[in-house]
Order: sequence, then C-alpha cells, then structure tokens
Amino acid sequence: MYATEPAREALIEKLGARLGRRVSRSASIREQYGHGEAFHAPQLPDAVVFAETRDEVLGVVRLCHEYRVPVIAHGAGTSLEGNVNAVHGGICLDLQGMNRILAINEEDLDCRVQPGVSREQLNQELRHTGLFFPVDPGANASLGGMAATRASGTNAVRYGTMRSNVLGLEVVLATGQIIRTARRARKSAAGYDLTGLFVGSEGTLGVITEVSLRLHGRPEKEASAACPFDDIQGAVATVIAIIQLGVPVARVEFMDPAQVRACNRYSGTELAELPTLLLEFHGGTQSVAEQIDVVRSLADEFGGRGFEWSDSRETESALWQARHNAYYACKALRPNADVIVTDVCVPISRLADCIVETHEDIRASALTAPIVGHVGDGNFHVCIVIDAGNAAELERADAFNKRLVARALSCDGTCTGEHGIGLGKREMLIDELGEEAVGVMQSLKSTLDPRRIMNPGKIFVDAAVIESAAAVKLEASQ
Amino acid sequence: MYATEPAREALIEKLGARLGRRVSRSASIREQYGHGEAFHAPQLPDAVVFAETRDEVLGVVRLCHEYRVPVIAHGAGTSLEGNVNAVHGGICLDLQGMNRILAINEEDLDCRVQPGVSREQLNQELRHTGLFFPVDPGANASLGGMAATRASGTNAVRYGTMRSNVLGLEVVLATGQIIRTARRARKSAAGYDLTGLFVGSEGTLGVITEVSLRLHGRPEKEASAACPFDDIQGAVATVIAIIQLGVPVARVEFMDPAQVRACNRYSGTELAELPTLLLEFHGGTQSVAEQIDVVRSLADEFGGRGFEWSDSRETESALWQARHNAYYACKALRPNADVIVTDVCVPISRLADCIVETHEDIRASALTAPIVGHVGDGNFHVCIVIDAGNAAELERADAFNKRLVARALSCDGTCTGEHGIGLGKREMLIDELGEEAVGVMQSLKSTLDPRRIMNPGKIFVDAAVIESAAAVKLEASQ
Repeated sequence: MYATEPAREALIEKLGARLGRRVSRSASIREQYGHGEAFHAPQLPDAVVFAETRDEVLGVVRLCHEYRVPVIAHGAGTSLEGNVNAVHGGICLDLQGMNRILAINEEDLDCRVQPGVSREQLNQELRHTGLFFPVDPGANASLGGMAATRASGTNAVRYGTMRSNVLGLEVVLATGQIIRTARRARKSAAGYDLTGLFVGSEGTLGVITEVSLRLHGRPEKEASAACPFDDIQGAVATVIAIIQLGVPVARVEFMDPAQVRACNRYSGTELAELPTLLLEFHGGTQSVAEQIDVVRSLADEFGGRGFEWSDSRETESALWQARHNAYYACKALRPNADVIVTDVCVPISRLADCIVETHEDIRASALTAPIVGHVGDGNFHVCIVIDAGNAAELERADAFNKRLVARALSCDGTCTGEHGIGLGKREMLIDELGEEAVGVMQSLKSTLDPRRIMNPGKIFVDAAVIESAAAVKLEASQ
Repeated sequence: MYATEPAREALIEKLGARLGRRVSRSASIREQYGHGEAFHAPQLPDAVVFAETRDEVLGVVRLCHEYRVPVIAHGAGTSLEGNVNAVHGGICLDLQGMNRILAINEEDLDCRVQPGVSREQLNQELRHTGLFFPVDPGANASLGGMAATRASGTNAVRYGTMRSNVLGLEVVLATGQIIRTARRARKSAAGYDLTGLFVGSEGTLGVITEVSLRLHGRPEKEASAACPFDDIQGAVATVIAIIQLGVPVARVEFMDPAQVRACNRYSGTELAELPTLLLEFHGGTQSVAEQIDVVRSLADEFGGRGFEWSDSRETESALWQARHNAYYACKALRPNADVIVTDVCVPISRLADCIVETHEDIRASALTAPIVGHVGDGNFHVCIVIDAGNAAELERADAFNKRLVARALSCDGTCTGEHGIGLGKREMLIDELGEEAVGVMQSLKSTLDPRRIMNPGKIFVDAAVIESAAAVKLEASQ
C-alpha cells in the first residue's frame, strides 16, 4: 500500500536535491523525531524535513502523495499519546522553523501565526499589548500542534479549549490543495465548520500551515487561592457550586494528597496534604474581590479547611509553578521513573465518585499514582509512576488505565479530555463513540486523504476498515 | 437523478400506510412548509411528514434513500435564507412534534432535548433551576434548527453561539445509520469533531434527532443601559475598548438613527435618535456595578451623550422588547412592506468604516434600510424595507446586498454571521472561502449523503460540481 524501500529512497533523494541539509537521515535525528513526550516506544521516520515555508510544505506533501509515502507533521513534540510516531515510516515534517508571528490585530483581539510558534513565544510578543493567549497545556507546545491535538489545560474552564480559540486555519491537503477554513470574522454561519474539522484531527487530514487565534484582554487584576478539604466530595461540591453560580474563575485545579505531597517535596510548597483546590481569579478589582468572597464562603460551606488567597505575584507564581511541575514532581518520586499520564474527563456530577473509585483502584493495583485535574471541566490526570523496564509494572499500569477509561465511559465521559487519541486510545475511541460514528470519521479521512499518507496509524485502529468503508461509499454512490 | 413522479407517489403511499394522518399532501400545508420567514419564493415539498419519534425519522430517511427522494428537516421554520425550501420537492420532515426535554442535569449544567423543543420552552422548563440557555436569535426557534443553522444572536458576545453551546448530537444519516457525536464530558479530544461538523450543516448531512446543550448559571444580578453617540465611530470605539478590557458584557447591541426612530415609533421607547448602544450586564452585584462604571467612563471618553442604566425589570424589559421587535418596527415603516435582512459580520476594527460606507450606499440606493447589530461580534443586519411586488425595488435591494457582502469580504469578514447560506448565499460562500474549500465541503457532503437526498440545493450552487468532485476523489483513491 505504501511506497517500497527503493521508491522511498528516490523520494528522499528528490527532497534532498530540493532542500539540501534541511533533509536529515541521521539516526539520532530520526530517533528524536520518532516519539513525543509520552511513554510509547519510538517509531522512526525514514527522514526528517525541516520546512521553512508553506510552499515547501506543499512541495513535500505533493511528492509524498505522488510516491505514496506517509507525512507526519511535527511541532514541539510534546504530545502524550504517540501522536507523532512514524508508524509506517515516511517523512517527518518539522514545522518549528515556521515560527513567525504574521499579524497581531489588537483591536480585533486576534492574531495569525505560523504553526511552529510556541505559546510562550506568542505571549512574549503580546506582552506590550493588553492582550494574551490563554490556552495553556503546561508544556511550551507549538500552536499548530495545539490546534491539531485540540489541546486545552488549566484555564479552559474560563477561556475555552483550542476548539473555541482557533478562528481559522490554512491547511495543505494530501491532494496538494491549500485551503483557508475561515475569514477573520469572530463568528460565521458560512458552510461547514472546516476549522472545527481540522482542530483535533491530529495531522491525519492535512498539514496546518497557519493558525488564526482569538486573543483575550489581560485582566486588570489577578489573584490566586488554595483550599484544602477533608475529602474529595467537598472539593468537588465547591467546584460544582462555583460553576452553577457562574463565578468566572480563570482556573480551578484539584490535587489529591499524593500529588500535594509530591509537589511539596519537589517545589518546596507547604500545602496541607489533603484534597486541595487551587484557584485563579481574573477581573476588575471589585469583581475579583467578589469572586474570592463567593468562593471562600462556598468552600466553608462544603468542608474547606482554611481558604487562603493572595494577589502577590511571588506567592501566585510559586503556587502555579508547583502545579505546572506536577508531572516532574511525580517523576521525582522514584529514581529513573517513567510517568504514564491518563486523561479521562467526566460530567462533573460524576467526578467525585470517579476519583474515589480510581483511588481504590490505585490502592488495589499497588501503583504510585498521584491525581491532578482541571476539575472545572471534569478532566483529571492520574500520573502513574513506573519503571518502564519492568514489564509487569507496565502491564499493571496499562490494565489500570483501561479500567479507568471504562469507568469514565460508564459515567458518560471521554477517554481523552485534551491529549488526543494518537496511538494509545484508538480502541477506546470505538468504545466511546461506537463503530458507526468512528466509521463516519474514517470515511471523512478517506475522502480528504485517499492514499492515507497523512499521519497514518493514528486515531483509527485498522487501515483495512477504511478501505472497506470507502468501498461501501463507492457502491452506495453508484 | 431524483425519483420520478410515480416513484414519489409510491413512497408517499408507503409513508401514509405507516404514519396515517401524519403524512399530509394538503396544498395549504405544503405551502406553509415550503418556506421560512425570509423573502424567498416558496418551493413546496411533495408531502409533509409529522414525525414523533427518532425511529420514525429513521424510517422516513431510509425510505427516501431507497427511493432517492429529498428529505428536508423542518423545525420552527424561522430561518431567513430559504434554508427549508424544498428545491427539488421531496419530503418535508416536521420535527416540532419531537418536543420533549429528555434530561436536565443541573450539577453538570447541561441538558438533552429533542430537536423540536423551542428555546423559550427550554428556558420555561429551567425557570425553577438556577440555570438558563442563553443563545437567543430573537425568534422562538427550535433548538434542532438553531443547531443546524449555527444560530447565535444578541448575547453570543458573552455566551457564544450554537457552535460552543452544543455539546453533542444524535444524527440520522442519509444511509440510515444513527450516530452520537459525543458523550457528556464538557470537553473531549476524542477523534474528529463530528458535533462541529453537523452544527451549521443546515440539514444537508443528516437529520438531528437529539441535541445536548450547555446551560449557564443565571446571574445574581442583571442591569441594562443605553447610550447615544454623536457618530458611529464613537459607539464602535467604545465597544472595542469594552472587549479589549475584557469587560464581560452580556449583550452589546448597536442601532443606527433610522432603527432607533423605527423602534421609538413601533415600541413607544423614547431613545435619542442617534447611533446608540444597548448593553446588558450580568454578574454579582459588585461585578455589575463595576462593569457599569467601566463602560460609562469608556462611553464618556468616546463621545457618548448620556449613558443611562437601570436594573428595574420593567425598564430593562421595555428596552430589550424594543430591540427584539426591531424587525417588526422596520416592517411597520411602510404598509404591506416586506423586509430583507442582511447578515454580514466583519472584524470589529473594520466595523465603523463598513457601516459608514453602507449608510452611503443606502442613501445612494434610495432604500429604507435601518441597521441593527450584534456589535460585540462585528455582526450587523440591514433591514431593507421593500414592496416585494415591485420588481425594480427588489432588484435594487438584491444589488445592494451583493455590494454589502462584497464590502464585508473586502474587510476579511463573512457573508453570514448567523443566518446560514441556505439558498440565498451559495455563490457568496465561494467568494468567501474559495472554490477549493467549498469543494472540500462538497466532497464531505458526497461522502455522507451519496444520493444527495439531504436538503438538496442548499449551501452548494450546483449538484453537478458534487458529482465531478466525487469522481475526482474516486480516481485519486484508485
């Protein structure tokens, strides 16, 4: 189905003639680009191409289409589900060189960037405006990659995910066309939502070569708070009440006692080692004061053990730095540890039960596995700390994650709130949405990428299924 | 391509045997269902079916697929671009009988409804909770229709459009499958965003049989304000500053002097007949007070001529009633008038210029045409008051709308902010996004609806294009 070895050689030679040293076949480079940050064994591309322009991307894609060779778009490589592994080899298209900010429209609160621009780079560029880009997955990911993965993070509860913050895209399709999915109006009812189709498609439908993003006004005032609770139920009940009352919290994060302990040890914080909420408030001075009052009294009502807030930059930044380093804090719990990060998201009414049951499962499985969560959205991560060299541990962690996803689905939740399907959750996607819905996705894929060169092996379990789905469509349309 | 007359007869007979009097061929019923609220000549279906269950919808769609007969899903019939006209005849599937609210999950701020539930019905049902559904297109539209049209309205500036408020859908596909596009988590990165694909697809990809919606906490406090300005620039500059400062206004509407005059006459308000902003504030008591202070001082800075606010229910409701009746106020400007409502949306930095140029065009065209707009989004409507019996007037209005759309596109805006493409804007869609992007939409349509039975003749200009696009794909996949 894909090109043979000699044909791949010929393709890479052609690319080399065109792009010179920006085509690499070095083993170490290929190894570096054959995986993301997660715990999936690397799968190497045949070559890595460092693209610098849209036209270069177009040229590579057209050649790959002609030669039937896979193309894997690559941003900062911070994805967690094997999303950039080269399952069938092919060309890894590194887009980090496409890192220009093309336009910032302050009056319109939007901007247009190349896909390799990182979120920190964009916010750095915005620092002299009154604006910022809020979506914050923790890692300094590329904005193209964040769009492709439908990323979110700690402040999605107020500012939304990439789904609502991408205004439009420029995409190079497998068949060598270039489309723009939207113009610059803040809303539109013009035809199908192609922007939404490509956001979250994980590079399987096309290569994103430009991203238009919504920006947000930087709040006049910020403050943060932490509050420990006797139990998870109290913490979650507080969050439900916050959301129901429409308190526009900018972040509301949960850490279980194991995570708090890990953070205290790693980051030197001195938080009580209890189920804990971390909150951030944005707004005018009075609005922030009012939000703090409301949340404090809710926390008191639901068993909070001392709500403490601060608007000092240092205290705030220490708190959120500790939160952002939660992953590394887990990794430090054990020498040479690997961390598997799960990613379920459930309706918030089911969250407390889901976390309690998950705690029981962690205990029964004898795993070291702190929990941290974007609790306003119902999204939480179990950071399973393992020794990847130990096959039995790996298997136990894998079985645990499968049970966790089954638990989330039984709560009408999702197997992935923000990390994507990638390699790791292809079967879970079918469990979640059913074969018919996934079949619809596969038929859309076949339509836009008939030779299946775009990041193959991701999202969908089996290429053969795509072939048979395409055949059915063909028959039906006769 | 579609079924012959005798085959349609046979189909309708079969449907009649199954559904009895819920299949109507009466001329007056067909006439009633052959158009929306807009000014497009009606095009009648062969029959109207009043569906009451998902399985009935499925049965109708399967038969229509078998017989190659068009199916046009119909909600409240309040669309404005000919979206429900039966261009190629066929079966109009009335879904207003599917009007049950299936679940309200207060803790999760979501609900699940049948497509025929109207937004007022839902809000009525929610009145004993602390929640409400904000999207408000003015008309008491059905929620299925609002999802299909990607509707929005006056408070999208704060609460988003249907794009961000639909959590998931159940859809009957042309090929007779039923899919659910998402589970109940508030966010997910699981596969392609099928929810987003069907929201705004105007019934051309499938029939929506259930809608899951986000609900919002009812604010503790509401207040409204009106402020006249010397000129449009001042009003728009105020809005830009409001948005940039992140003031979370719930509504910010613009009326030009002609619209204010029409409203004063029709609704008995006594607003100064100047470019005017109407605002609504939601939040805690202190937050609302603070929002009012900030907006008042911005309005003063940009030439506001007396900012007046109120939190009395009566004053507020009189103001917003007048705004909601803007369309009827325009209609009343002339005996037996028809009103053509345009719907462009532009980046807000271009809004003042776009409205000023549009005013000049209105004057030069000798049209009566007040302007009202969801100015926080850059979306505005010109209500062109005409005598539809007068061909010259109609032509002048049509030419004016074409120039208006061209002007919006030259500002990098859209031909439709919230009414959809329907029949009226199919060529403009190509002008807006280009033939290749629209070709992608058509190929998605062909994939999901290979016999093109789903609301044919809408969004896309020419079915022949679909055929050739499909042929190209077929060839590419060989």
